[in-house]
Amino acid sequence: MAEYVLNTWYPIAWSRDITQSLAQRRIVEKDVVMYRNTQGKVVAQLDICPHRMLPLSHGKLKGDVIQCGYHGMEFDCSGKCVRIPGQDKIPAGAKVTTYPTHEHMGLVWIWMGDADKADPAKVYDLPQYHDPAWQAVEGDALRIECNYLNLCDNLCDPSHVSFVHLTTLGNAASEDVPVQSERTENGVLTWRWVLDSPAIPLFQKFGGFTTNVDRWHYYHYTAPSIAVIDFGTAKTGTGAPEGNRDDCIQIYACHFMTPVDENTVIDHWLHVKNFKADDDTNKAMSASFREAFSEDKVILEAIHKNEKAYPDFKPVLLNLDASAVRMRRLVDSMIDAEKAERQSVKAA
Amino acid sequence: MAEYVLNTWYPIAWSRDITQSLAQRRIVEKDVVMYRNTQGKVVAQLDICPHRMLPLSHGKLKGDVIQCGYHGMEFDCSGKCVRIPGQDKIPAGAKVTTYPTHEHMGLVWIWMGDADKADPAKVYDLPQYHDPAWQAVEGDALRIECNYLNLCDNLCDPSHVSFVHLTTLGNAASEDVPVQSERTENGVLTWRWVLDSPAIPLFQKFGGFTTNVDRWHYYHYTAPSIAVIDFGTAKTGTGAPEGNRDDCIQIYACHFMTPVDENTVIDHWLHVKNFKADDDTNKAMSASFREAFSEDKVILEAIHKNEKAYPDFKPVLLNLDASAVRMRRLVDSMIDAEKAERQSVKAA
Amino acid sequence: MAEYVLNTWYPIAWSRDITQSLAQRRIVEKDVVMYRNTQGKVVAQLDICPHRMLPLSHGKLKGDVIQCGYHGMEFDCSGKCVRIPGQDKIPAGAKVTTYPTHEHMGLVWIWMGDADKADPAKVYDLPQYHDPAWQAVEGDALRIECNYLNLCDNLCDPSHVSFVHLTTLGNAASEDVPVQSERTENGVLTWRWVLDSPAIPLFQKFGGFTTNVDRWHYYHYTAPSIAVIDFGTAKTGTGAPEGNRDDCIQIYACHFMTPVDENTVIDHWLHVKNFKADDDTNKAMSASFREAFSEDKVILEAIHKNEKAYPDFKPVLLNLDASAVRMRRLVDSMIDAEKAERQSVKAA
Repeated sequence: MAEYVLNTWYPIAWSRDITQSLAQRRIVEKDVVMYRNTQGKVVAQLDICPHRMLPLSHGKLKGDVIQCGYHGMEFDCSGKCVRIPGQDKIPAGAKVTTYPTHEHMGLVWIWMGDADKADPAKVYDLPQYHDPAWQAVEGDALRIECNYLNLCDNLCDPSHVSFVHLTTLGNAASEDVPVQSERTENGVLTWRWVLDSPAIPLFQKFGGFTTNVDRWHYYHYTAPSIAVIDFGTAKTGTGAPEGNRDDCIQIYACHFMTPVDENTVIDHWLHVKNFKADDDTNKAMSASFREAFSEDKVILEAIHKNEKAYPDFKPVLLNLDASAVRMRRLVDSMIDAEKAERQSVKAA
Repeated sequence: MAEYVLNTWYPIAWSRDITQSLAQRRIVEKDVVMYRNTQGKVVAQLDICPHRMLPLSHGKLKGDVIQCGYHGMEFDCSGKCVRIPGQDKIPAGAKVTTYPTHEHMGLVWIWMGDADKADPAKVYDLPQYHDPAWQAVEGDALRIECNYLNLCDNLCDPSHVSFVHLTTLGNAASEDVPVQSERTENGVLTWRWVLDSPAIPLFQKFGGFTTNVDRWHYYHYTAPSIAVIDFGTAKTGTGAPEGNRDDCIQIYACHFMTPVDENTVIDHWLHVKNFKADDDTNKAMSASFREAFSEDKVILEAIHKNEKAYPDFKPVLLNLDASAVRMRRLVDSMIDAEKAERQSVKAA
Repeated sequence: MAEYVLNTWYPIAWSRDITQSLAQRRIVEKDVVMYRNTQGKVVAQLDICPHRMLPLSHGKLKGDVIQCGYHGMEFDCSGKCVRIPGQDKIPAGAKVTTYPTHEHMGLVWIWMGDADKADPAKVYDLPQYHDPAWQAVEGDALRIECNYLNLCDNLCDPSHVSFVHLTTLGNAASEDVPVQSERTENGVLTWRWVLDSPAIPLFQKFGGFTTNVDRWHYYHYTAPSIAVIDFGTAKTGTGAPEGNRDDCIQIYACHFMTPVDENTVIDHWLHVKNFKADDDTNKAMSASFREAFSEDKVILEAIHKNEKAYPDFKPVLLNLDASAVRMRRLVDSMIDAEKAERQSVKAA
C-alpha cells in the first residue's frame, strides 16, 4: 500500500452523480459507498459490511439506512448499526467507518483522515467559479491508469503542451520558452508568457484571434491533488503582460484529482471562463479539452507501465522539472508530518 | 498453496459428464485428467506427463491407455508407463499419480489423500436419493470464484435466505427468527422453524400453499465440503413441528462442493424431493434453484474480492455465525490431524 | 529477471518490417525502438526516454532523430541528445542506450551485450541461403507464450514430429526410431535416419513421393537461439544414406528465435530448399509449416503453464532428451562465462 496525505479534502465525485441510491467510488485504496440522504446531505462510508465484508453497495438504501444485502444488518448515516435481524444485542464492532463530506463547486469532497480535523471551510475554492460574470462548465471524470502524482507532474508542466496538444492547447511558438517555478503557501506555481505569436488552436477557434497575441499560462498546483491552470490571451500590444486584461479571454482549467490507488487516478475536470457562451459552444470547448486530456492519458499510462517495468531506471532531471520536484517534496513532507503526528499521539 | 483435508471423498464431476474421452477437472490445486475406461470405471490421474509436463488431457485415449500428445509415452489405468517410443527401458520416474474414484448419487467422487485409506463405503449417502417414493433431479456444476469455505459458510446459514432469495427460497416472515446450531459427528447442523406464516415463493409455486404454513430448515453440513438442506412445509395446524409430516412437501437440496483452489469452488447441486413431477415441472424447479444460487454467487464473489483486498480487516461475529465458526474449527482440526499423522509416519 | 546470453547476435525482426518509421520490439526483457535511418541502416535503441520514461516509440521520427512525444527531446542515431526545448545545456544523463544491429538473411540482428564485442562477421549464416540453385521462402514471426529454451528443446527434438505433426512433418513410421546427439562447436546436433518407409505428408504433397523413401532429419542447434533443421528425402535404393543426394528434395527449416522474456519467444521461421517453386506452391508449403508450428505452440504454451503452476514437479528424463540437456548446459555455461568476465573486468 502506498502512502497518501489523509488530512485533506479530496474531490471524489461529481455532485450530479450522487443521488438517493447507492454508488461506489474508490479513493486512497479504500472503497467508499455513497448516497444522498433524505436531508440532501451526501453520506460516504467504507464499502464493507463489518460482518461478512460484503460491499454495502450491494445492499439496499432504505430511507437513510443501508441494509446489507447478505443478512440484513442496517447502518445509519453515522455508521451506527441500528438493526441485526434475529439478534437484539448490537456488538461493539458492528459499525461502519463514515467519512466527512462537503459539496462545493459541483463536486463532493471527502475527508479520509481524522474526522475531527475536517473543516469544510478549508475545501479548495476558486472565487471566479461563483462570479456571475464568469461561466463554469463541467467536464468528465477521466480515469487514467497511472499514479496521481504523475498526473500532478503533468499539471505542473506548461512545457509539454507544445508537443502533446498541437491541435488544442499548444503550438510550436512556445517550444523553446522556459518556464518559471516557485513554492506557494499550499502548493507550487509554474508559469510562462508567450509573447507576440499565434494564439493556440483553442483560442483561434473560440476567441477568434487571427493576429499575433500575448498569452499567459499559470499552473496553480495545490497539494496534494488539485491543479488549476489560468491561461489567457490578448492581442499583442494591448498591454496584457503589464496587467491590462480588459480585452482578453481567460480560462481557469480545473483538475480535481481523486487518487484511487497507486495505479489509478480520476481527474474531475471543468473550466471556468470570463465569457458566457451557448450550450453548443460550451460542448465544443469541452470536446477540445477532452481531446487534449485523452492525449495526456495515453502518455501517462505508457509512462506508468515503464515505471513498473523498469523499477531501477534512473531518469534524468531537466530544468522544466523544477515544479514537479517541488510538488513531490511537498507531498512527501505532508505525509511525513502526518506520520509524525500520529506517532506523537500514540506516544502521549 | 492453501491446506486441504485430503483423506476424504470429494465430489469432482457429474457421472454423466465423464465418458470414454479425456476430460480435465481441478481440485485442491491439482489438475486431474479423467476418463471412463472400457470396463466403465472412472480413471483419474494427475494431468501432467512426467516427462515434459504436458497435460495428459492434451493427448489421446487409446483403449485404456493415455498416449501423451508430445512424445507418445503411454500410461495405463494404474498410472504405469507401458510404452516409451524409441526407448525400451522404462525409468522408475515414468509414472502418473492415480487417484481412487467411486461413483455414487450421480457423481464421481475422488480421494486425493493416501490411496490405501480410500474406502468407497464411506462416500456420503442420502438414503432418500435411492427411495422409489422420492425423486432426484440433477442440477448444474456452478463455478463460484471464492474459497469453498465461504460457500460452506453460506450453506451453514439459514438466515441469509430472508434477504438474498426473496423470489425463491425466502421471505420476510423469517427475518427475525434466530437459528440453532450444534456439532454433529462429522459436521454441523443448523436449523430453524418458521411457524404460521406465508410459504416461501418456491413452495407457493410448486406446493400450491395459499394459507399460512409451518416450515422447517435443517442445514446438514458434513465436513469438509458437503451440505444437504432439508426444508419442508406443511399447513399450519397439521402438526408438522410435533413430527407429523403426512401432508407436507419436503426437499433435500444437496450441494456437493469441489474445492478447486483457494479462489474457486464448484458446486454440484441437485434436489431430492418427496413427490414426483413431470419433466417440465422439474426443470422449472431447477430454474428457481439456479436463480437462487446465482444470487449467492454474486455475493460470495464480492466477499472473496474484499477479503483479498483488505487482508487486515477484522470482521465482527454475530449469533448466526455459530455454525460457520464450528464448521471452520472442524475443518482446521481435520487438517491438523492429517498433518500430525503424516509427521508421526515420517518419524516412525 | 531471468539471465540471458548477451554477447551474441540475436534475430529481432524481419528486415521487411523495419522502415523509416518507429517500431517497437522486445528482447531479453528490454523494449527496443527501431527504425531505418536515411542511410538505410537499422537503428535500435532502448525504448525509454531518459527524462520521463515515455517510450520513444510514442514520439516522432524526424529525419534521423527521434523526438520524444512528451517534451520534444531529440536523440540521434547514436543515442546522443541533440535538443532539449527550452534548455541549452544537455545533462550527461540525457542519452539513450543504442544497440549494434546487422542485417543478414532477411533479418535484423541485434547485439544486447558489450557493444565493442559486436562483430557483424559472426552473425549466423546458412550458405545455401545465398546459393542461386536454392530458394529461400520467408515465413512468419510466431509469438509463443513460453520460455525460449522450451522452444529450443522442441527444436533439438526429432522425436516429437511422429506424434505432433501427423499431417505435415511426421508419420508413424518413425515412432520407434531412436535419435542421435552430439555437441558441436557452437551448439548441438541431433539426428536420425528413417529408412525404407513412406514419406512424410509434406513431401508426399510437394515431392510427389508415392513409394518408400529414405529420409534424414538433422537438427542443428546453434546457441543460444538458432535452430536449422536439415531434412530431406530420396527414393529408397538411390543411396542417400551413403551420401548420394542427386535426386532428393531437401529443406533447411530455419528458426531464428527472439527471447522476449521468461514467458515469451518469437520464432522467425523460413525455409531454404533445393528446388524452386512458384509463388502458389511456396505459399502452400509455408501454410503447411504454419500448421505444424501452431501445433507446437499449443503444446509449448500448455507446458509453460504447468511449469509455472507446479514449480516443484520433478520431470523424468528420457533418452531423447540428451540434446536438450546438452543445449541447456551449453547456454548455462555461456551465461556463467559472461558473468565471470564481467566480474573480472570489475575487479581489474
